[in-house]
Amino acid sequence: MKEKRRIESGVKIIPLGGLEQIGMNITAFEYEDSIIVVDCGLSFPEDEMLGIDLVIPDVTYLKENRDKVKGFIITHGHEDHIGSLPYVLKEINVPIYATKLTIGIIENKLKEHNLMKTTKRKIIKYGQSINLGCFRIEFIRTNHSIADATALAIYTPVGIVVHTGDFKVDYSPVFGEPIDLQRFAEIGKKGVLALMADSTNAMRPGFTMSEKTVGKTFDNIFADNTESRIIVATFASNVDRVQQIINSATKYKRKVVVEGRSMVNIIGTAKELGYLNVPDGVLIDIEEMKNYTNEQLVLITTGSQGEAMAALSRMAASIHRKITIQPGDVVIFSSTPIPGNEKSVSKVINELSMKGAKVIFQNTHVSGHACQEEIKLIYALTKPKFAIPVHGEYSHLIAHSELAQTMGIPKENVKLLSSGDVLELTESSAKVIDKVPAQGILVDGLGVGDVGNIVLRDRQHLSENGLIIIVVTLEKYSNQVLSGPDIVSRGFVYVRESENLMDECRYVVNDALERCLNSNVTDWGKIKMEIKDTLSEYLWKKTKRNPMILPIIMEV
Amino acid sequence: MKEKRRIESGVKIIPLGGLEQIGMNITAFEYEDSIIVVDCGLSFPEDEMLGIDLVIPDVTYLKENRDKVKGFIITHGHEDHIGSLPYVLKEINVPIYATKLTIGIIENKLKEHNLMKTTKRKIIKYGQSINLGCFRIEFIRTNHSIADATALAIYTPVGIVVHTGDFKVDYSPVFGEPIDLQRFAEIGKKGVLALMADSTNAMRPGFTMSEKTVGKTFDNIFADNTESRIIVATFASNVDRVQQIINSATKYKRKVVVEGRSMVNIIGTAKELGYLNVPDGVLIDIEEMKNYTNEQLVLITTGSQGEAMAALSRMAASIHRKITIQPGDVVIFSSTPIPGNEKSVSKVINELSMKGAKVIFQNTHVSGHACQEEIKLIYALTKPKFAIPVHGEYSHLIAHSELAQTMGIPKENVKLLSSGDVLELTESSAKVIDKVPAQGILVDGLGVGDVGNIVLRDRQHLSENGLIIIVVTLEKYSNQVLSGPDIVSRGFVYVRESENLMDECRYVVNDALERCLNSNVTDWGKIKMEIKDTLSEYLWKKTKRNPMILPIIMEV
Repeated sequence: MKEKRRIESGVKIIPLGGLEQIGMNITAFEYEDSIIVVDCGLSFPEDEMLGIDLVIPDVTYLKENRDKVKGFIITHGHEDHIGSLPYVLKEINVPIYATKLTIGIIENKLKEHNLMKTTKRKIIKYGQSINLGCFRIEFIRTNHSIADATALAIYTPVGIVVHTGDFKVDYSPVFGEPIDLQRFAEIGKKGVLALMADSTNAMRPGFTMSEKTVGKTFDNIFADNTESRIIVATFASNVDRVQQIINSATKYKRKVVVEGRSMVNIIGTAKELGYLNVPDGVLIDIEEMKNYTNEQLVLITTGSQGEAMAALSRMAASIHRKITIQPGDVVIFSSTPIPGNEKSVSKVINELSMKGAKVIFQNTHVSGHACQEEIKLIYALTKPKFAIPVHGEYSHLIAHSELAQTMGIPKENVKLLSSGDVLELTESSAKVIDKVPAQGILVDGLGVGDVGNIVLRDRQHLSENGLIIIVVTLEKYSNQVLSGPDIVSRGFVYVRESENLMDECRYVVNDALERCLNSNVTDWGKIKMEIKDTLSEYLWKKTKRNPMILPIIMEV
Repeated sequence: MKEKRRIESGVKIIPLGGLEQIGMNITAFEYEDSIIVVDCGLSFPEDEMLGIDLVIPDVTYLKENRDKVKGFIITHGHEDHIGSLPYVLKEINVPIYATKLTIGIIENKLKEHNLMKTTKRKIIKYGQSINLGCFRIEFIRTNHSIADATALAIYTPVGIVVHTGDFKVDYSPVFGEPIDLQRFAEIGKKGVLALMADSTNAMRPGFTMSEKTVGKTFDNIFADNTESRIIVATFASNVDRVQQIINSATKYKRKVVVEGRSMVNIIGTAKELGYLNVPDGVLIDIEEMKNYTNEQLVLITTGSQGEAMAALSRMAASIHRKITIQPGDVVIFSSTPIPGNEKSVSKVINELSMKGAKVIFQNTHVSGHACQEEIKLIYALTKPKFAIPVHGEYSHLIAHSELAQTMGIPKENVKLLSSGDVLELTESSAKVIDKVPAQGILVDGLGVGDVGNIVLRDRQHLSENGLIIIVVTLEKYSNQVLSGPDIVSRGFVYVRESENLMDECRYVVNDALERCLNSNVTDWGKIKMEIKDTLSEYLWKKTKRNPMILPIIMEV
């Protein structure tokens, strides 16, 4: 009976990140004894995750089924698709399959984490297929804001699942060929069981512009500002954007300086692998800048999102060691702010303007994701039975779901999955049948998973109100006060100017303590509670603030 | 000689907030023995101002010249123009002059702060003038996202200064008349020395749409969703927006429920003063909702900016006591996110979508501020000699400055002022001659100004890394360890899962302490420093984290 159920069961599709952890793209496909994992991204902490550096996926389910896992298939080299690999590979060491540039970028990471020797990786070309357990995976050329992005046709025992990865339709890409629409159509003709397509821009009507349009804007800006130094901030990973800056620089006879660690890394890799074409003598070292005048220079830098530690932000705040913003500098923001970064971006813009720089951000960016008409196009070519919108916030998935319905997919065949949902897909059905652990795991420094909700709640409390520590030494058995209570505060008020308040706190604590000791309360827990409650009440009345209060009793 | 200098001297214009504290609109105008103050706003804390509720202006300069100050002239009833009044009035109790609705909204504040009896206030009509010391101030009708907004013509001994307040040009306002362009022109004919105009939308080309266009959108949405409950979130202070929601509700025979404290307050005031026209029986109490079906109801609520404690956010998070979001609810966001709020807004939108609500935000808002063509219009009508762009971030002021130049103002006559700059304006010159204190003052609970940089830095440190407290009791003179070292941590790691780490910390601290005592270090400062440095180094190596470490020594 069990055997029968097994044969009849479908393919399981399990997103281990995604909706609840935007950006953390990692999806397992399981059939009998085979699991393949598409992408392995990380997400960045929410505002309330104080002090957290990264969030990585919970791969408990993969660990529990370690023997089944055949490999990671990575669609392209962005952090939200590759960033967790170093963490996850330490738990599940299986081969990585990806295109050439993607593998190159992954290798930078593996080197940093000392994982080059232990990690198998294989470069796959567009059109090529690999067999992993019961799955065959075909790589299909797409376009995105990084070269070598791929969609996947996953041939499963129940049918073909097409996964677009992050994509757009660019008929005139800067590097390589346009997306292989014919192949999408061919596979569509064969019959596609499910389409998992990029939802990021599902709320935007129309078509995303070609990356080449940005190159034209750059040319115009370079032509208009022949007497200024030009600084362009963009995503390190947008190799095509960098190529176009280098093209304009070459055309206008400027030297190019690259600044920002991630920018230097990726440009190095892209150049080495032939994804970036730089004429001899154009790239110069930052130390050589002094040999050139402003109008002979272009700087390509990180920091287009206003990230506090990125090169451009440090220039704007006058804390960059090597580059000083000068009046007349032209600074191009070649990116749009990711939601949540608007304020830091406008802070950097203001700082640059105050230093006399001219800031330009109109028509200097196009998205790397498909808009509504492109998403519809992929539906029209593949004609899937089921739609599983991926990549985006809930509102994007909802918008995608509506698009899918206008393309003829019945509402009940559109499946919006939460992280950890186990979707069982058969030839005729798609149903969430289970849930596996898929909460993000917090990384703080070297600590993975040792900061949880209690710690975060404490950080939140401390950040808003600061703390007051009360220490008192009591004599064993007699419970006589031998020293203290001493009061130490941090992040509460500026003590020198609030001496009265601190004195009053001392009285209040003393009173509470005496009250306890006089009535022979000997349970330290109770004494601490009494001190805490009394002081807390007093402070709220007096200041309408609620610092963390930590009573500590020492026994001698 | 001194007397002569005095007579020749010009009018001083001193912004006490503004550029460095966006939103905190407060500008002093001084001539000889007279000071008038235009607006008295507050600003909201920057992200790094942890735990701070509000930022109010430093009015030291006004306090030092208390006898000269004749009154506050308030241009309209928004928080960023009136919010600091309760704080500042406690220091400088002078009369307030404003239009009727503005005074009404200010009175709500005065009541809350128990300042009604001690504060003189006078309602001024459009076209009316008041004399305050050497200044005459004329109120000129404008349009904005709140009714009764006024521009000011300030007649000074050196010439006329026109201050637009926040304004837009609305030829078909929902309440009252269009902006009095004729009067701007008349005053322009007389000769305007300086124009201080709203820069908020100086980067946006074209004209801001009329508020009435939003009403049409509402009508369409109401017509399309006759079977759903409709919830509209907007700014409490946008009385005209509320009027239009009520109009659509009346037209489509729905009852209106108002939710959110500030919304209830302002609607009450506006209704009472005749700025809001509500047909009998349309407004119902929240408790009466149960008597109506969904399609008979409209909810007007706060929370359009995703503010965590506002009514809509609580509904979205299922923690609103009286209203539960239901599948099929239509939620209209009638506002655009203020920079910095994008992420919280999209969080609320996602939560609402997950509950099955349909979220609408297209064409449901227009700005209350003039775009480029409107700003140019005011320049064309007033033809000022000097331009002093106000209200906006630095990049907006720069854009405004460029507009002013295209309107024929020479670059050297455009003055961008920082908070605290003292601009001396004469018939022929405008020059920053001095600087007065104008740093924002932080308000945390009842504390005004008792949280400074050190406290904020501690909060930041605590929020990112948590803290470790080490307590040890030493015997007086002998310096023998009587108890401890005890270690307490908060916000660092989840202790139960990190017992090893905490044990190791104890060893490290013990070692450091013994090292000190064995080598007869008796200076407690030195002992604490040694403990702190040793533990800090150990933790950084082990965890790459940097918690606050607080060694406390008790003496018995």
